[in-house]
Order: sequence, then C-alpha cells, then structure tokens
Amino acid sequence: MNSLSIRDIAKMAGVSVTTVSRVLNGYPDVSEATKIRVQQVIEECDYQPNNAARNLKRTHSNTVGLLMEGSATPFITDLSDIIEEEINAHGYALVPHRVMNGVSGVDTAVQLVMEKRLQGLIICGGYFIHSLEQLQRLPVPSVFCTTTLTGIDHAAYSSVHVDDRQAAMEAVDYLCSIGHRDIAILGGIEHDQGGVSSQRLRGYCDALSKNGICFDPAFVRYCGLFTMQRGYDATCELLASGRRPTAIFCVADELAVGACKAIFNAGLSVPQDISVMGYDGTEIARFYEPSICSVRQPKEGIAKKTVEVLVSLMEKKGQNRHIVFPTEIVTGGSCASPRKA
Amino acid sequence: MNSLSIRDIAKMAGVSVTTVSRVLNGYPDVSEATKIRVQQVIEECDYQPNNAARNLKRTHSNTVGLLMEGSATPFITDLSDIIEEEINAHGYALVPHRVMNGVSGVDTAVQLVMEKRLQGLIICGGYFIHSLEQLQRLPVPSVFCTTTLTGIDHAAYSSVHVDDRQAAMEAVDYLCSIGHRDIAILGGIEHDQGGVSSQRLRGYCDALSKNGICFDPAFVRYCGLFTMQRGYDATCELLASGRRPTAIFCVADELAVGACKAIFNAGLSVPQDISVMGYDGTEIARFYEPSICSVRQPKEGIAKKTVEVLVSLMEKKGQNRHIVFPTEIVTGGSCASPRKA
Repeated sequence: MNSLSIRDIAKMAGVSVTTVSRVLNGYPDVSEATKIRVQQVIEECDYQPNNAARNLKRTHSNTVGLLMEGSATPFITDLSDIIEEEINAHGYALVPHRVMNGVSGVDTAVQLVMEKRLQGLIICGGYFIHSLEQLQRLPVPSVFCTTTLTGIDHAAYSSVHVDDRQAAMEAVDYLCSIGHRDIAILGGIEHDQGGVSSQRLRGYCDALSKNGICFDPAFVRYCGLFTMQRGYDATCELLASGRRPTAIFCVADELAVGACKAIFNAGLSVPQDISVMGYDGTEIARFYEPSICSVRQPKEGIAKKTVEVLVSLMEKKGQNRHIVFPTEIVTGGSCASPRKA
Repeated sequence: MNSLSIRDIAKMAGVSVTTVSRVLNGYPDVSEATKIRVQQVIEECDYQPNNAARNLKRTHSNTVGLLMEGSATPFITDLSDIIEEEINAHGYALVPHRVMNGVSGVDTAVQLVMEKRLQGLIICGGYFIHSLEQLQRLPVPSVFCTTTLTGIDHAAYSSVHVDDRQAAMEAVDYLCSIGHRDIAILGGIEHDQGGVSSQRLRGYCDALSKNGICFDPAFVRYCGLFTMQRGYDATCELLASGRRPTAIFCVADELAVGACKAIFNAGLSVPQDISVMGYDGTEIARFYEPSICSVRQPKEGIAKKTVEVLVSLMEKKGQNRHIVFPTEIVTGGSCASPRKA
C-alpha cells in the first residue's frame, strides 16, 4: 500500500489535495471533522506521506515550475526553452510539467509545488482557473504567461501576454483591407471560457463588424486541438460546404499549414484562390511554401518579462503586475487580394 | 543553506551523485575516505537530504521516467505522447524529463530515479552512455528507445529502435534508383559516437558505395540541431558552393523543410531542380507543399514495444531484449528523377 499518493488519499477522504497537505502539516485552518476523516484514511491505508511534501515548510529549493496545458505546440515549446534560459540566468532551476486535458490543473500545481518544493509557478494557459477561490489555492507566487484570467480581480495575480482579441482583430482587419469579405475562421475549443481561442474569435467578430461584414456561423470551424490534421480536416469541410471563403484566418500556425495543404489538395492555390493567415509567428509559418502570413507574438520579450515578474514576486520586491505585449503581422506569400468575381 | 541539492553536495565533495546517495543510504561499497569526505561536506553545509531519495529502498511509486535528450523535436514529442498513453494503460504514471545539452544524462537519471522513486526508465537518445560502467550506474530497469548503444554488451541493456543505418541506406538507394548521383546529406552532430546521426551518415555512404558513387565531403553538411533554420542555412551554403547536388538527403524532416525553403528562395523548384528526402515521417513532411518524401519510423509500434519490454523487466518477467522495427519510405512530391543534363 506504499504506492498511494496524496491524491489517492484526498480522493478516498473526499477532500482536496491541499486539505490533506494541511492536515499532514498541522495547519490550523482545517475543521476537526475533516481532520479526523483524513487521518482515518491515512491510518487505514498505512499511507506514508512523501516527505518532500512535509518538508515544504522547512526547506526551499531554488526551483520554479512551468505548467503547460495540453499537448506541446511548437510555440509553447520555443517559449519554454527561452523561459528555462531566463530562469537559469536568475539562479533558479525550471521543472517543466504538462497538464493533460481532463486533469485538474490546480491539483496538479499544488502537488507539484509540494513534491518539488517549488518557489514559484509559471502557468502557460489558464483554462483551469475560473474563480478567485481556485486561484488562491496556488500556494506560491504564480505568473500567467501568454494568457490572462477573465472575471478575476487583477490585483490577485500576475500575467504577461498579448492582447489576443486586439491582435486577431488587426489580422482580420488586414484581410478586409486587401479586399476580402468572405473570411472564415479556424478556431480552437468551442467553449473555452475566456481562453485564447475565444479571445481570438472575438477579435475576428470585431473586425467583421468594423468592416460592415455580417457574421456567418458557417464560416466558423472549431478544431479543438492546434494540429495540422485538424486544420486540414476543417478546411476540407469548408471547401465541401458550397460556400467557399476567399480567406481563412487560423488561430494557430499549425492549423494554417493544414488549411494550405487542404487548399492545394483541392487543386486550388494559395493565395490566388484562397488567402491563409496564421497566428503565433512560428518557424513553420516562415518555412512553409508560400510563407504563411501570421500574427507574431514576441516570445523572447514575453518569456523574459514573465521571469522578471515572477522573480520579483518570489523575492518580495514587487507586487502583482499585468504586462501586455504588442503583436505584429508578419506578411508572407499566403495572403493577397481576392480575384475579381 | 537548506536549498542545497544532492548535486551541490556531490560537486563540493568531488564525487558523483550516486556516491553521495550511497553514503546517505549506508551502502557498503564506498571507501572510508570518500565516506568521510562526503559526510564532512554534509555537516559543514547543514545539508538536509531530500527524504524522497532516502525512501528509495523502502517505498516504490508506480512511476516511470522518460529521459529525452536535447530540444524536443516533433517526432520525439509525438512518441512521448504515445509512450505516456501506453504506460498509463499498464497502470504506471510517466514523468517526462528533458536532458539539456551539456548536462550529464547519467547523473540526471540517477537523481530523477531517487527524487521520484521511479521504477523504470525509458531513454530516448543515448549519447551520454559510452561505457558499461556508465550504463550500470542506472539504478532501475531501463529501455533505450529509438536508439541503441554501440560497443556495449547487448545482454546488459534493452533497446527498441529502427536500423538507422539500413533505413538511410534504403532512402539514398531509392534516390539513386530514380537516377540521382549528386546526392548531398544534411547530417546532425559531427562526432556523435554511434548516435542516430552517424548511423544515418553511414547508411548514406553504404548506398553511394553500393551504386558506385564516390563519396564527396563537399556534399556533407552537419547541422548540429534538427531545426528548419539549420536545414535552411546548410542548403544555402550548398547552393552557394558551386557544386550543386540534384538531391538532398536530410536526417530529419525539420532539416528537409528548411532545405526546401532554401531551394524555393533561390528561385529553384522542388523536385524539378533538386529532390529532397526527409527522415522520421512526421506531420510536417506530410503537410508541406510538396509533401516531403521521408523515412517513416513506426512510432506507435516502437512506443508500445518499449513499454512492453520495460514492464516485463520491472515485473521481473523478462530479460533484456533488442527489438528492431522496419522502416518504410513514404513517397511524396519532393522527389523525382533529375533533369537530363
């Protein structure tokens, strides 16, 4: 029975991992009933707590965790490489950790902090935080990177990101400015509650509205994951739907690559028949043929500022801050004015 | 002083992490002089050992480590996703860990095993193991995945991989069979001592030799990293060198993408002017335009077999094994017969 984790105990006692940890560490803010229930489960299971967790209060490592949600995209992989360099330059080590879909990010964060005795967290993606209560469960200073939280008091957390809504608006406005009016969007997750996908969809709507174009639900495709295959499949659907766009705005470069390939495979050309715009400004957009026009996020700046803000929080030299970086449209061969009808 | 790690202690005592661990755990096979030196450093620094390490002998987690060398390539990222699924299906959890260049992989492995109480290791890449002694420092069953070790007794370890030399030979032989004789290669690391890059270079040489083509050092370019930018830069050099190949064999798909872009940017076409062949059979090769001909490694099969071999070792149901998977050439629009001179 020694292979039980703190999560197993929490599950069996019907409480959170944090609560189990608080009982183990003798925190006063746990009700007597809860304390007894947790201790019973621990005794019944002959649970040996991981001592690293119990050492939390006594010892600290110079280690920072990096939580990344979902599968690694090239943009996030590049970003995490720069974050690691920066963290090392500040005398800390980085523990990267991916949170898989369907796993509670807050529980993962709490467990990781205890096991690795982390002093701080960098969180790429924030789909799993929907309330101030969830946010406050994070036991160490945390900075949200490339994302922000919606509906939560800004004073309660830090973030370093771009204005995804504004950036998407500018990208689609650019497509309008060169003559497009039938513009489709390949989005991410349909109901992501304030995540980057929904921000980019809003920006798309803003641009249509600004240019007097009616929103057409048939031009919106949710891809779920940011993969080339998903972009390919969604574009095949669009092309088969009978109402063909003259341009496609993709909320990630991988989707844009898939979109281009679907267009080529349908015997059409990019950009002559359909223009394609990506997002993130990654290597693959630059090296595709034609190069894919994209919204560049300044990943070096974002990574450095994220580390700077976190270090100042950990060393108690600063307060929560929110830094918004500008984006820029990187032009490429994938966008041109539509053919005259 | 509590933030010191076992590595810091090892460094200060001038011994390995394993030695410090052996002293802490009271193993008999440490010389008295070494033991005293380590204990002195521990006392001087008031070092509190991470108890997880001391629990190693007593408790076990159902956890397996995945060590990946260097930056994550899309092939390794995909492979690790499948390994994770398979490991979970066998009732184990996976701890992925990247070993950065310049860091000792063996020390990292030993430390990770202790901290996370790992029961087994999957090692993608094996540049850091050059002797039986290094291999034997790994304290838990280990399987080398997509790679093998050279010059070390096969009975001492397990591996699941493709025959990189044979696969590269077949790829270049295919280029010869459609009429190419001026074939360049974009390689990885110049002196990687038996790693995949050198195996693929040998396969390239085998194919030239088989087809009666003299090896020309001017056609060999080492890229170091498997990135699009490196492939691009190396191809620009090749094109500027005055001796232009009719085909380029790239030891990774990312290099092949960079090669294609360099050819396009020089005003030439793929495959009419220069054919390009990749390696790994990744998504980007399939979605590039034209699709890039590549050597497909069966990643699902490799991942499943790796986990199967490791589980049988951990559960003491099997001995060390070596499984070699066949590869296949995925044809694409990037290869064609050379133009008649």
